[in-house]
Amino acid sequence: MASVRRLVIDVLKPHDPTLLEFTERVTETDSVNGVSSSLIELDQEVQNVKITFEGEDMDFEVIQETVEELGGTVHSVDQVACGEYIVEDRRTLQDS
Amino acid sequence: MASVRRLVIDVLKPHDPTLLEFTERVTETDSVNGVSSSLIELDQEVQNVKITFEGEDMDFEVIQETVEELGGTVHSVDQVACGEYIVEDRRTLQDS
Amino acid sequence: MASVRRLVIDVLKPHDPTLLEFTERVTETDSVNGVSSSLIELDQEVQNVKITFEGEDMDFEVIQETVEELGGTVHSVDQVACGEYIVEDRRTLQDS
Amino acid sequence: MASVRRLVIDVLKPHDPTLLEFTERVTETDSVNGVSSSLIELDQEVQNVKITFEGEDMDFEVIQETVEELGGTVHSVDQVACGEYIVEDRRTLQDS
Amino acid sequence: MASVRRLVIDVLKPHDPTLLEFTERVTETDSVNGVSSSLIELDQEVQNVKITFEGEDMDFEVIQETVEELGGTVHSVDQVACGEYIVEDRRTLQDS
Amino acid sequence: MASVRRLVIDVLKPHDPTLLEFTERVTETDSVNGVSSSLIELDQEVQNVKITFEGEDMDFEVIQETVEELGGTVHSVDQVACGEYIVEDRRTLQDS
Amino acid sequence: MASVRRLVIDVLKPHDPTLLEFTERVTETDSVNGVSSSLIELDQEVQNVKITFEGEDMDFEVIQETVEELGGTVHSVDQVACGEYIVEDRRTLQDS
Repeated sequence: MASVRRLVIDVLKPHDPTLLEFTERVTETDSVNGVSSSLIELDQEVQNVKITFEGEDMDFEVIQETVEELGGTVHSVDQVACGEYIVEDRRTLQDS
Repeated sequence: MASVRRLVIDVLKPHDPTLLEFTERVTETDSVNGVSSSLIELDQEVQNVKITFEGEDMDFEVIQETVEELGGTVHSVDQVACGEYIVEDRRTLQDS
Repeated sequence: MASVRRLVIDVLKPHDPTLLEFTERVTETDSVNGVSSSLIELDQEVQNVKITFEGEDMDFEVIQETVEELGGTVHSVDQVACGEYIVEDRRTLQDS
Repeated sequence: MASVRRLVIDVLKPHDPTLLEFTERVTETDSVNGVSSSLIELDQEVQNVKITFEGEDMDFEVIQETVEELGGTVHSVDQVACGEYIVEDRRTLQDS
Repeated sequence: MASVRRLVIDVLKPHDPTLLEFTERVTETDSVNGVSSSLIELDQEVQNVKITFEGEDMDFEVIQETVEELGGTVHSVDQVACGEYIVEDRRTLQDS
Repeated sequence: MASVRRLVIDVLKPHDPTLLEFTERVTETDSVNGVSSSLIELDQEVQNVKITFEGEDMDFEVIQETVEELGGTVHSVDQVACGEYIVEDRRTLQDS
Repeated sequence: MASVRRLVIDVLKPHDPTLLEFTERVTETDSVNGVSSSLIELDQEVQNVKITFEGEDMDFEVIQETVEELGGTVHSVDQVACGEYIVEDRRTLQDS
């Protein structure tokens, strides 16, 4: 299968573990080289965060399991880059 | 024929296979070096995604067949770059 | 005459040939090194596309003939760069 | 645990110590290589500031203790980057 | 006199010669290394175009003569860069 | 103490000395390598200016004294970067 | 005194000499390496222009004398950069 090199997911997570612990933990997933998490919004119960994973051949199922073990749910997969290198998404005249 | 080096297409696909599997599969198409897929919007039945392909001499018919085998349809071809290198689309005074 | 190094044109074309075939074909024009085509809009009859050509000494008449052989018409020439290198159009305080 | 390489936090702090002293002090925290603080807004009692920390393996608890010793409180953790290098957060079609 | 290295002018020209021929011709002016022309707007009689000239020591009078020989008129000179290298215009807090 | 490498301050100053003299004078402060001053707005009595200082280990008290000797007052400290290198403030999803 | 390396001024000038001649003339001022002039607006009597000067140790009084000899007046000094290198003005959260 083609190597998954970048994944951007939208996650709902409880306040505990914190965004920091959550990010440290998902970064430890096999095949993940680096992760950046950004807070989108929060309410009393949950945090909605955007998480970007980079690696050379990532296994999404293992990532998703880790997210769920930590009490989170993957709300949507917003971007996926596969192949020999990371193809950047570019704005076209069709993007609103 | 001139080498097709970048293709941006707008695709409607069912929820299954997921965007991840879909992207992995289309990346395996012969002559494709890398793919980036971005979720535009989704409803209960379908996902509308923007897919950027890069390669050195890509065969669109094979790409389109793979998209269709996976249950997707190419809604439109939004950008095509051909030739010895990738010519970037630049904003002109005529772009709205 | 000065070398034409970049040309941006606005083209109306029928749906057949597709944007992909159309772009492949105009890229094969003598003296053209690379082409990027972007869909602006489409209706039932025609596609309105923006096409950027780069080369070292391009012959617009031959490009225009190719566009017309493919059923297209050059609606306007939006940008032309000539000379020893490509001068980039820069935004000034007079641009709206 | 994965190395924490960048942290962006939102802090409420009293006017004393000043933003300068506050930034100098939190930069001295073990494992922090550099810090940038930006004033968001202020009223008579407090300053709301955004603080970006970079380091090779930062310990947030120690950072948080330093913030609190200086009279500040961490209002939210807005971004966390962990791993072998800093993954940049990129805008996707899902970002509003 | 100081070397003129970049000139941006606003020109009104008839439809004939075309923007392509017009650009090729003004690029041939002595001391001009490269030219980029962009269509601003057009009506039935005239085209309003923005033309950027780069060279190492350009003579505006000769450029203007060429523009006029081709039926055009220089409506305004919008930017001039002189000296040992091209100083870029940068946005300041005073730019609206 | 951690090295202060960049400081952005908001200053109110009288018209005399001019922004030029003012900037030259504050640049001469020990440990300052370079300064950029930008006019925000002015009225009959005062000028409101944004001043960016860069250096390897700057002493704000000395800078502030110089500003005051020149008749200015530091209205606010808007950004501070300390440490081994300048950490850039980056836009997050929490910035309005 | 600290070296003045960049100056951005707002100038009102008569139509004669032209912006081109005006720019060539001010570029010849001692210690100026390069100048970029941009037209802001014009009416029947005057042109309002933004002029950016770069040099290694510029003397503003001489620049101002040249501007006045050419019939212009310095309406405001909008940006000044002094020191060992040019410090760039960066957008902060306090910039409107």
